[in-house]
Amino acid sequence: MGEERDRRDQILEAAFEEFSAKGFRGATIKSIAEAAGLQSPALIYWYFPDKEALFREVLGSRIPVLRAVRDPARLLERPPEEVLPLIARRYLSTFDNPAAQRMARLLVGEATRRPEIAEIFGNAVIKRMLGFLKSYMARQVELGRLRPHDVRSSARAFIGMLLPQVGGKVFFPAIREDGLTDEEHVENAVGMLLEGLRPEGKQGWTP
Amino acid sequence: MGEERDRRDQILEAAFEEFSAKGFRGATIKSIAEAAGLQSPALIYWYFPDKEALFREVLGSRIPVLRAVRDPARLLERPPEEVLPLIARRYLSTFDNPAAQRMARLLVGEATRRPEIAEIFGNAVIKRMLGFLKSYMARQVELGRLRPHDVRSSARAFIGMLLPQVGGKVFFPAIREDGLTDEEHVENAVGMLLEGLRPEGKQGWTP
Repeated sequence: MGEERDRRDQILEAAFEEFSAKGFRGATIKSIAEAAGLQSPALIYWYFPDKEALFREVLGSRIPVLRAVRDPARLLERPPEEVLPLIARRYLSTFDNPAAQRMARLLVGEATRRPEIAEIFGNAVIKRMLGFLKSYMARQVELGRLRPHDVRSSARAFIGMLLPQVGGKVFFPAIREDGLTDEEHVENAVGMLLEGLRPEGKQGWTP
Repeated sequence: MGEERDRRDQILEAAFEEFSAKGFRGATIKSIAEAAGLQSPALIYWYFPDKEALFREVLGSRIPVLRAVRDPARLLERPPEEVLPLIARRYLSTFDNPAAQRMARLLVGEATRRPEIAEIFGNAVIKRMLGFLKSYMARQVELGRLRPHDVRSSARAFIGMLLPQVGGKVFFPAIREDGLTDEEHVENAVGMLLEGLRPEGKQGWTP
């Protein structure tokens, strides 16, 4: 049992390295098996039906923000002034890791050239994040903690407002020239969003 | 005079076509001169010092949202509940144009592979938009129309909250599966931002 777990982890680790060095297309089941020190690529299929499933699992287990949202039940009941800054920080700090930066560059590059890779990436990352946020926002509205609103829009707004800060780390260093730190941005942008979605009659968010 | 203006427009038109068909790197002064029907590429240098300057001018003149912000004085005094939805709509509708979509795909792809192209693109598009928004937000705070806040953060948040909607048009169609229209998103997301930045004591934004 422990050995099986180890082997699965070993495959995920090797796959993360391969995907971040070569992109989705460049990394193959064969090259991942080699990097994991397996005798045969067939062993990978014991754990994962195909490369896309392996990719999804790599992201879901190695990227802190995706790990946080894969078990929504844990977060769903906690209040937005706690959960949203937490997710924002995990999301931004993901891109301080050079391997994650490299992977983001490669995957976005591939997605611009190949619709099938855009779809895989879109499903594994973007739909997962947006899906979690829509459920989370809807639950907070239900609990009376946020005012009624279109959660498709607030989910996009939340993810999106952080993107220029990610862009500054991964693609466009010029964005960072004004010196805004992640912590300042989380505080200001998430604060603005909470303020903008505050239920009528409810006083400020400060504890 | 009229003839000079015509020729300059002709170059810009041809350059737009070339950049959107071939990306920044693929389009050359030579290929642009040919597409514009000029006898010699040297004629382009009469109007533009280099390819980067031509590129900046193409974007600034052909992309509606960049055209709108190139003369900030006109917008600076107008209220946020008018200006922000206007810019948001222009920005989103830009990507309904197939040539602009293609150009965005090519340029983002190039930017992921080449830092020097990321820098050119970052300066020509992202810094220009963020720069305008920071000035605009700061002026609105000065006028007491928005509460005091970090404008580096609200500028990023505004641009960013629209990005997933752009992403759905250009890169990741999966995002659009929930059916949120541009108009709904502008109304909801910009409404939330205005609400979140409303000066203390000021009543709702509705006219």
